[in-house]
Amino acid sequence: MLRLGLVISRVGLILVAIAAFMLTPIPFSLYYGTNDIRAILLSAAITAAAGFLMYRLHPEEDEIGHREGILIVTLGWVLAAGFGGLPFYLYGTFTTYTDAYFEAMSGFTTTGASVLADIEAQPAGILFWRDLTHWVGGMGIVVLSLAVLPLLGAGGMQLYKAEVPGPTADKLVPRVRETAKRLYIVYSIISAAEVLLLLAGGMSLFDSLTHMFGTMGTGGFSPKNASVGAYDSVYIEMVISAFMFIAGANFLLHYQAVMRGDLSVYAKDEEFKFYSSVVGFFILTITANLVLYKIYPGILTALRYATFSVVSITTTTGFVTADFVKWPAYGHYVLLFLMFVGGCAGSTGGAIKCVRVWLLLKVAYCQLFRIIHPKAVRNIWYNGRIVLPEVVQGIQSMVVLYMTVFILASLSLAWLGKDIITAISAVAATLGNVGPGLGAVGPVDNYAHFSIPAKWICSFCMLVGRLEVYSVIVLLAPEFWKK
Amino acid sequence: MLRLGLVISRVGLILVAIAAFMLTPIPFSLYYGTNDIRAILLSAAITAAAGFLMYRLHPEEDEIGHREGILIVTLGWVLAAGFGGLPFYLYGTFTTYTDAYFEAMSGFTTTGASVLADIEAQPAGILFWRDLTHWVGGMGIVVLSLAVLPLLGAGGMQLYKAEVPGPTADKLVPRVRETAKRLYIVYSIISAAEVLLLLAGGMSLFDSLTHMFGTMGTGGFSPKNASVGAYDSVYIEMVISAFMFIAGANFLLHYQAVMRGDLSVYAKDEEFKFYSSVVGFFILTITANLVLYKIYPGILTALRYATFSVVSITTTTGFVTADFVKWPAYGHYVLLFLMFVGGCAGSTGGAIKCVRVWLLLKVAYCQLFRIIHPKAVRNIWYNGRIVLPEVVQGIQSMVVLYMTVFILASLSLAWLGKDIITAISAVAATLGNVGPGLGAVGPVDNYAHFSIPAKWICSFCMLVGRLEVYSVIVLLAPEFWKK
Repeated sequence: MLRLGLVISRVGLILVAIAAFMLTPIPFSLYYGTNDIRAILLSAAITAAAGFLMYRLHPEEDEIGHREGILIVTLGWVLAAGFGGLPFYLYGTFTTYTDAYFEAMSGFTTTGASVLADIEAQPAGILFWRDLTHWVGGMGIVVLSLAVLPLLGAGGMQLYKAEVPGPTADKLVPRVRETAKRLYIVYSIISAAEVLLLLAGGMSLFDSLTHMFGTMGTGGFSPKNASVGAYDSVYIEMVISAFMFIAGANFLLHYQAVMRGDLSVYAKDEEFKFYSSVVGFFILTITANLVLYKIYPGILTALRYATFSVVSITTTTGFVTADFVKWPAYGHYVLLFLMFVGGCAGSTGGAIKCVRVWLLLKVAYCQLFRIIHPKAVRNIWYNGRIVLPEVVQGIQSMVVLYMTVFILASLSLAWLGKDIITAISAVAATLGNVGPGLGAVGPVDNYAHFSIPAKWICSFCMLVGRLEVYSVIVLLAPEFWKK
Repeated sequence: MLRLGLVISRVGLILVAIAAFMLTPIPFSLYYGTNDIRAILLSAAITAAAGFLMYRLHPEEDEIGHREGILIVTLGWVLAAGFGGLPFYLYGTFTTYTDAYFEAMSGFTTTGASVLADIEAQPAGILFWRDLTHWVGGMGIVVLSLAVLPLLGAGGMQLYKAEVPGPTADKLVPRVRETAKRLYIVYSIISAAEVLLLLAGGMSLFDSLTHMFGTMGTGGFSPKNASVGAYDSVYIEMVISAFMFIAGANFLLHYQAVMRGDLSVYAKDEEFKFYSSVVGFFILTITANLVLYKIYPGILTALRYATFSVVSITTTTGFVTADFVKWPAYGHYVLLFLMFVGGCAGSTGGAIKCVRVWLLLKVAYCQLFRIIHPKAVRNIWYNGRIVLPEVVQGIQSMVVLYMTVFILASLSLAWLGKDIITAISAVAATLGNVGPGLGAVGPVDNYAHFSIPAKWICSFCMLVGRLEVYSVIVLLAPEFWKK
């Protein structure tokens, strides 16, 4: 049975949490004396009021069912962006609600694709909120709500699985609220470390915080028009690269490493090794390619831009220091490919995720073994455990659905008149929660010139990608709605 | 145990069969009085001599082992192209052996990608041989050898499985020689019908035969520089479209339909229905798109070019009547996507094949059902039977390996300096055995301008695609070579 009252009520709670976060830009608006306070306060009030009214539909504590959990999470994200876009709309950042929604969805899903042409013309409060959505969405708005709102705890497990469906989710399910809290503690510690290092590099507190939000959420919104490239500082690029790489790894590993003070957890984790190898391999080959084609004056400069771009795209952050569309084809083709791979499960990164790609390759290799020895039985091992067939099945089907959404969405953009590279990369970049693509949505361009239907297609892709396909697509199956 | 002597001997037999086919262009050389007879006779003699010497290494009848079968098939194809390119090389069609090899591999694998700039400048015998390779390769050179050479029969099952690894292969394995003969009977009947219809349309016997080879093998080499577009005839396009569509369907269905005189076999086959729906859907949407953008003077003209192109690409034939690169993005993006789907299993078409795509979609939908009802068990059905998990596993891994080869090969082309569209579509078109791609390898271009390494990469892709990945890739696994 699907109790819609219960669903709406819990989504209301999520909105209340969002409303509380909406107030955090106010000190910056006051400090910089910007004229966005009214719009922000009004947005927070509307969101809180709506959330509270929705909550009143079913205020009793109650177990959340399996399908209800999926609906709460998906609806929660849809409405978080719906209300999260209000500050942009009420302040007048955008003239259409479509743009405001796009920007907020891009923020919460940590995509970082923007329809904002002149970023630096916006007031501090708006820009702070724009980037804060990354930090909130990074670890999951439902996980966040779980951590701060006791009432959600009763259905936490269902919610957690619907928002964080990665193959490793099972490990931490038993005490969901505790897990959510722990994740946020580690997340906050690492976030604080990045802010300190950015401050040490001479960044203002405002810039340090907003870039930290964009980094830790693997989002990619920057308060600068030229993104991280605006600072032209090797130190800042190194700090941000390092923290993007951390944010693209599994936070459970970070939790273990921080709590036990033991870095060997990384060396033992297959996904982390795969992730590091992919990043390392493509940094080296792109650097070699850039040197070969003499794009930059020296090897170190090539290495500098290759490193930042590969880390930024693989982790699905999308910060930019180089206009990689101008590189030879190898470089930007690698980046397009990496948009599909993405970060690790349990990270704030998006896309298909390293663990899935790694396991699919293992399964395929195992199939070769079966062709050589048809009668032998060989199990798939991952981190010292046998991977159950249903887990493999789930991964393979996720990838099939991911690619199906990719194809249908990019065909739709092509129908709307986008060239192939723009259509492919815009969907790869929004579905993978990366941000910048290639062609007309390259690193120095944005999505502002997209038509309204194209913007809604991209917004939908961001949502599908962030929730790893199932929780959104399952709502399209008629069986979901049957009694 | 891997008996290399036995392997080489059986590959030798395949070469003897190839040599016999090499003689068939001679009547046309004589009729047209062209100067290619010496080169063709010499090529046939060299091929026959090499084949016979190889055969003498192990002339005894002997069971062929599992791994030996894989090796015979892959080596058979590699050398078929190696010797099949001799007429081109000895006549002087190409100045490099790389080009001759590329053209022959493209012929046998029914790819139809060409490095020949001025086709009509070549003599009749050479052009006949060039197209005949499509017909020979279409149903499989090993299947052909099985049908005509009794000695191979002892290991026929292993060979058949290595060359025709589709999920439906099991059905016809018990009496392999019989099956191979029957397939060739149906293949020949349908081929004859096409020749008659083309003759009735006013084509010369030479043009009818060569276009029939290109159609029935879903190859795409034409003796005309402008491909089928040279005739500018609706009748000829309709005949060739119809036979491309037939050749892209499962020949087991054709066998049943012809033998039983019962057309309902098609309506009952899930793959055929999927295949027809895909072709129909994209013909209609591309036509609508072409009309919307006013590319052609009327709906019927748009329908005409859309139909031919969609059928040509989906069946992986690659005949051309329109320069689809000049269409709006939707049209050529659809064609790029269809290059991955391909024809039906048991057809002469290439790529991933409809049955695999259809089953993957079914499995993914079933996974959605499992998310809605976690405790329910639901089987995957295909044509009224339950699909075993190992079959699904094999399909999924084939697709993973296919995409892995696609990514590595296209990254290599990008490294060599090709732009993304050219790199992606050249690999999609050679791995999928389609022929023409987009960008610099579009329908009015060819592969002549590729560098030697790029040509070998594409040749390798054609081989991998034609043997549906496993039989080639497994040779790269060290375990294959262990005792």
